[in-house]
This record gives sequence, C-alpha cells and structure tokens, in this order.
Amino acid sequence: MLRHLIEPDDFTSREYDTLFRLAADIAENPALYRHRCDGKILASLFFEPSTRTRMSFDAAMYRLGGDVLHLGDAKVSSLAKGESEGDTVKIAEQYADICAMRHPVAHTQHEVAKLLTTMPLINAGDGDNAHPTQTLADIFTIRDEKGAWSGLKVGFCGDLRYGRAVHSLFEFLNHYDNEFVFISPEGLEMPAVYLEKSNCPYTETGDLAQAIGDLDVLYMTRVQRERFASSEEAARYRGSYILNQTVLDRGRDDLIVLHPLPRVDEIATEVDDDPRALYFKQAKNGMYMRMALILTLLEASDASFGK
Amino acid sequence: MLRHLIEPDDFTSREYDTLFRLAADIAENPALYRHRCDGKILASLFFEPSTRTRMSFDAAMYRLGGDVLHLGDAKVSSLAKGESEGDTVKIAEQYADICAMRHPVAHTQHEVAKLLTTMPLINAGDGDNAHPTQTLADIFTIRDEKGAWSGLKVGFCGDLRYGRAVHSLFEFLNHYDNEFVFISPEGLEMPAVYLEKSNCPYTETGDLAQAIGDLDVLYMTRVQRERFASSEEAARYRGSYILNQTVLDRGRDDLIVLHPLPRVDEIATEVDDDPRALYFKQAKNGMYMRMALILTLLEASDASFGK
Amino acid sequence: MLRHLIEPDDFTSREYDTLFRLAADIAENPALYRHRCDGKILASLFFEPSTRTRMSFDAAMYRLGGDVLHLGDAKVSSLAKGESEGDTVKIAEQYADICAMRHPVAHTQHEVAKLLTTMPLINAGDGDNAHPTQTLADIFTIRDEKGAWSGLKVGFCGDLRYGRAVHSLFEFLNHYDNEFVFISPEGLEMPAVYLEKSNCPYTETGDLAQAIGDLDVLYMTRVQRERFASSEEAARYRGSYILNQTVLDRGRDDLIVLHPLPRVDEIATEVDDDPRALYFKQAKNGMYMRMALILTLLEASDASFGK
Repeated sequence: MLRHLIEPDDFTSREYDTLFRLAADIAENPALYRHRCDGKILASLFFEPSTRTRMSFDAAMYRLGGDVLHLGDAKVSSLAKGESEGDTVKIAEQYADICAMRHPVAHTQHEVAKLLTTMPLINAGDGDNAHPTQTLADIFTIRDEKGAWSGLKVGFCGDLRYGRAVHSLFEFLNHYDNEFVFISPEGLEMPAVYLEKSNCPYTETGDLAQAIGDLDVLYMTRVQRERFASSEEAARYRGSYILNQTVLDRGRDDLIVLHPLPRVDEIATEVDDDPRALYFKQAKNGMYMRMALILTLLEASDASFGK
Repeated sequence: MLRHLIEPDDFTSREYDTLFRLAADIAENPALYRHRCDGKILASLFFEPSTRTRMSFDAAMYRLGGDVLHLGDAKVSSLAKGESEGDTVKIAEQYADICAMRHPVAHTQHEVAKLLTTMPLINAGDGDNAHPTQTLADIFTIRDEKGAWSGLKVGFCGDLRYGRAVHSLFEFLNHYDNEFVFISPEGLEMPAVYLEKSNCPYTETGDLAQAIGDLDVLYMTRVQRERFASSEEAARYRGSYILNQTVLDRGRDDLIVLHPLPRVDEIATEVDDDPRALYFKQAKNGMYMRMALILTLLEASDASFGK
Repeated sequence: MLRHLIEPDDFTSREYDTLFRLAADIAENPALYRHRCDGKILASLFFEPSTRTRMSFDAAMYRLGGDVLHLGDAKVSSLAKGESEGDTVKIAEQYADICAMRHPVAHTQHEVAKLLTTMPLINAGDGDNAHPTQTLADIFTIRDEKGAWSGLKVGFCGDLRYGRAVHSLFEFLNHYDNEFVFISPEGLEMPAVYLEKSNCPYTETGDLAQAIGDLDVLYMTRVQRERFASSEEAARYRGSYILNQTVLDRGRDDLIVLHPLPRVDEIATEVDDDPRALYFKQAKNGMYMRMALILTLLEASDASFGK
C-alpha cells in the first residue's frame, strides 16, 4: 500500500517506535544496510534551496546503496516554463522509487501526494507548516540520550514564535508527561494557540542563564536578525539568549543541548566541544532516521522490496 | 568503433529496431540490467537548463548501475572563464565513458563530436535543430501501444510552427504509410517546408474537437503565451486547442494521447486519469530508450564492454 | 590518525613517492580499484564555483565505487542564513567519510580542518594560496612522461605573476636539479620573491618562439584579458605568447606541453592532436591522483578501511 510521511501524525506511536528501533539499529550496524537500496532511486525535489536537509537525504540514500535524482535549481527548471509542481512530481514518479520534497508553500505536498500511484513521498518541509523528518531527528536524539520522552524538563530558547521545529517538537512532547520552559525575547514568545493546548505545566521567562539550571533538554533556535525592531533590541537579545560556556556551566551534567541548525551566534562555538552539545550528533541522527524512513516507506509500498 | 547519436538518421532502421527491442526488454526485465554499467560514468553536459531530460538521463544511468557527472550551472563554470564547449567536452572525455549533451546553439554537438576519440556523445537537444532521444521516446511509445508505425491517423496539435518534437516525429512517421491531421492556431501552422515533403495525405484544421474523432494518435504540444499577438487571440486559442475530458470523450477508445512535456494548460489535468492519456508513460519510456541507447553506444565503442 | 592535504608539504617526499606509484597503478589497472570505496561518501564542498576540479573529484570517487554529496550553490545554501563555513563542514562530517573543499579566502581550510575529528579534508583550492591536487597532477604527469623531476629544462609561459599553479609547480621542481625559463609579457613576470629563492639557474624572456627550442617541458597558462592595460598590449601578447603549430614545430620531439586548463586562446586548437600536447592527459592524470589521494587519506584515518 502506498504510504507517505507528510504530517507527523501519518504514523502511529507504535509505528514510530518501530522506526526509532530501526534507526538505532542502522546507527549501530551501518554495514548491514549498505546494499538495502541497491538499484533504487530517491528523487530529491527541493523547490526551495536547502543544504543540510538535502544533503542529509542524499547521504541517507547513498548509505543504503541507492542513487539520487536532483531537481536542480527550481527557478531554471521546467517550472519556469509554466509546469505545475504536480506534473514535475508525476514525472519524477516515472524515474524514481521514492521522493523527498520541500516546497515554500504550506500543504503543497498534501496536494501532490494525491497524484501519486507508486512513489512514496516524504515531506522535507512545506512552508511554515511541517518538517516531520527534523522533528523525528529531534525526538530520536532525546530518546537515544534520555531513554524516554517523558519525565523531562525541556527548555525551548530563541524564536519560539516562528520556529517551526519548536512547534513540532512541542506538539510531540506535549503528548507525554513533561514540563516546559519557554525562553524567548519579547515579541518572539511561544504563540498563545500552543500554550492553550499544553497538557504539561510550563513557565515562560526571558532569561536563559536563570532557566538552564534544572533543564534536562535545552532546545536552542536561530533568531533572524530582521525579527528585531532595532539594533539595541538585537544587542539586548544577544545578552540574554546566547548559550556560551559561562551559561552552559550553570546547566546540569546530564543536560543535553540540541539545535536544528543552521546556527548563527546563538550558541558560541566554544561550547561545541562540551559533551552536552549534541547538535552535530543530532544531525547525524537525522541521517539515520531518514534511512529508516526510506526503508520503511519502500517496504510498505512495494511488496517485492528487499525480497 | 566510436559512435554517436546526434541526428536521428545516425542510426539505420534496422538499428532502431534492435534498439526498440532492447528498450522493451529493459522495461520488462529491469533487474537484468541493474549492473550493466557498474563502474561506468555518464557526463551530463547541459549547457542550457533542463529538468526532465536531464533527470531522465540521470535515472537511465543509475538504473544501469552507473554514475553521473554534472556540468553544473554553465554560467558559473569554466565557460565563464572563456573555455570553449569543445574543451569542456574533451575534459569530460578524460573522466567519463559516455556523455549526453544539450546546447542552445544548433549543430554545436556536430562540431564537438569531431574532437572525441573514446567517448560516445548523445545529443540531448541542440537549439531548434534536433532532440533525437525525445523522438525515440515518442516512436517507441507509438510502437509499444499500436504495434506499428504505419496505417495510423496521427493528429499534431498546438504549436506546429516552432515545435521541434513535432517536426522530428513527423519526419519519422512520414517514411511510413500514415495520415496526418495538423491542428493549430493561425500563425502556428506546420511550416510549408514540411508539408511539401509529406509523402502521406494530410489535412489542416483549427478545431481539435472536430478532428479528434477518428485519430489513432494525438500528439499535443505546449504553446508559449508570447506567441500570440493579443490576449484575445490567446483566449481564442484556449477554446479550440485545449484537450479536456469533453473533447477527449469525442475520441475513440483506442486513441492514445502523447505530449513531450512540460505542459502548461493545453491538457486539462482532469484527463490525466483517462487510460488514453499516455504522456507520463511516454516519459518513462524515454528513460528506457535512453538506457537502451547508452548500452548500445557503449557496446559499439568499447569492445571490452560487458565482457 | 586523521590526516589532511591542505598544503603541499603536508606529505613527505617519501609519501608522495608512494602516492605517485599508487596513482600509476590505478591508471594501469582501474578495474582493481572499482569497489575500493563502496559505501563511502565524499563531500564536495565548493564554496566557489568550479567545473573541472569538481568534476575530477566526482569522477575519482565514482571510479572508486563511492558516492558524492554536493554542497550546491553556496549563495543559496545555509551560508545565506548566516551559517559559518566551519559549521557547514562539521555537518558534512556527520554525513561523509572524506571531503574536498574549495574556498575563495586563503587559509580557510587550515581553520576548518581544526574542527574535524573523523573526516580527512583535501584542499581543492583556497584563494590564491594553494591548490595542491593541481600541482600533484602536474608533477605526476612530468614524472610519468619524463621519468624524473630533475635534469629538466622547464619553461613557464603566460601569466607568471598571478598564476597559482605556476608558483606551486616551481616550488616543487626547485627542490631538484632543474633549469627554468620564464616567458611572460611585461607586468606578468615571475615575482621577485620566487626568483630570489630559486636554487636552479633561470632565464627570463618575452619570446616563446625563441625559448621553446631546447625545453623538455613547457607549462602554459591562461592570461586574463583584464590584466592588460589596452587592447594594443593584448594584441602584442597574442603574437608572442601563443602556442600554435608553427611555434610548436620549433620545439623538440620529446618536449611535453602542459596546461592546468581552462585555456582561452593561448594554445591554438590545431596543436591538440600533436603528440606533445598532453594537457588533456594531464587532466586525466589529475583524476588518478585524486583517486590515490582519497584512498591514502581514508586508509590513514580509518584503521578498518579496506579490511
């Protein structure tokens, strides 16, 4: 049966559990998976530029023994001739076995997926709506490091208003018994719509140094400069929401620091060698997750896969 | 012996017949060909942007087990430093085993092919001159669906004046005992030079709905908006040359509808699910044809290939 | 132990000797190396456009059975979001086994290499500082054709002032017992800083036709038009520093002509078929060198590689 991953809830909890166990096994025994996708092709359809996510999908497919077709620069592609996204994806379906698609307009993937008959589609980000493989990388890393998704005190720091990764991770962790600390500058607070549906206790603060002391997980995000009204405001932000070694030293020994990347200056590079800084490992986990996801969707969609 | 495919008549009818039988076998038994190009490299030299054709060649080579080198954006490549196309292709010959080349200037491929000593060259489009692998995909699809290239009533609809794909397919089918219907807006008619050399009976019309009734094959093409003098003219076009379900319902059950893609709005998407709509299958056939072509040229050029 | 190639002297003479013997063996027996990098990934991190060097690294990795991750257009990548080169490379380290990196700013590679813990880095050009794999291709070709790097009379012709490839090759050959002839237009002479440290006898001239007669090696380089003050000066250059068949006919039978490519018009294409014209073979040698280098660095860095 053809299956996609477009919204996080396209998979059940049980299916995610299976997925995470597969990702963990891949991370442990990569050589066992080196030829699982021999002869298979991933279509990498990024209608919006991306470096990290695109390279992560590429690496995932290569490490499974498969190949990757790239859409290339969308501005100079067939789209410039007036072709619809749907047609581009339908053509990719003729050539490829599975696809990863990013698009700047929310819900585009929901629409094009309806046109597909043989090719599973993985949402690699649809505007400000969803980016499920980022969230999977985040929660896989938390599970891997903390052994669970509940009983945790989780701090979210930075741009909590526009941060898609923050919203998705919050929604996942909100299903379990956790506690949240929202740390943000004025104007970039967690939107009320999320706070209202929080099943977990939460607090809001503007001071990272004060909040970090009893966190289990600190999820940092990039704040875009243009979000600030003035350079004074930006300067104030820099004082209160930057993780440097002095601030990190107030954190517990078993704290883990995550970041969806790219970062600008919200985490000082001096922190990178601290064993609690796990954002690069998180990126690697993202690759393992995508390997697991590719295998799972190919197996679901193609009865002969792996036989 | 080093062989290229630059113009459609670089191959004899007998050779095309062998090629089509190979493509059909690949389509039937893809797994048998999965490792035929292990260790081989295709240089994808697109001096002009392309999505569909480039991805089709990439997919063809990957499905044979080979790899692909991409020229990348020609505007920022060595060409920007003043390098000639000939030198770029000669350098590619050092790295690759076969190449697919597109260039905006007609007959460029004829010139650069003279410089090659080991690498077969496939013309992936040279300006308005030729695009032989598109034509091969078209005629392979007709043969596959109709069992023959003769005894057919073939309608060409849309921009028959500038449509390179139309001209090439006409020239091929004109060798056989067929009948043509040219359906086009005023100003975009089939050029006299082609009509004069037609060996087959033909009619010209401006009304798709009237013409479709007794066609075996309908070949639709994209009409660029800028071809029209005014928006009124464009609006008139939309009424007469668009294939929607109502128009298609006037066609026979064994009609097949082809399109070289990309399309804009000349075929309504409501038609896509009709079993007579074969343009996506035609794209897939193009990939199989390119696989057959790559194998054939490598075998001709390299006595040790496949041994 | 993690090793990089950033500056030419990162390897000892003995190590280079081993490397060249490996490259020669690869050139002789490519099939033996076809699967040596199965399952390995090269990250191709070109922060500046490149066709020839990038394609050479790609081909090298593919001919070893590996895959390649591409950074893509640096202007539209994560860098545009403010990410540092260091972070981009650290993320690549999560996905890839080895990387080739080009950057417009000299010494960037020295800095980012300090951040790496598992991924060897090959400098594919850092501004006007170094481009060691080009130099390796040059000296491998000289060794392969001449059997030695000493006892040679070597002419350098063209832009000797800004030509990075010229400077690097000079520095290498200057360790041995050679003789140099510097042939350049006024204003583009070999910089005094190099002449002063020459251990070998040298002469300077402005006349290629006169100098070519007793050379063993002629190393041509591209002169950028904008280096000339006027079109008259450029025209004068064209007369004195262009290698055409008439000039080449004054050279010895065992002369070899090299060029780092791309060329513009400093070597007439009529010369390309002359057996002394080795610049395309030199490009192929560059690919073999890069294959040898990739294998050598992977072996040094990963005790389990090839086991």
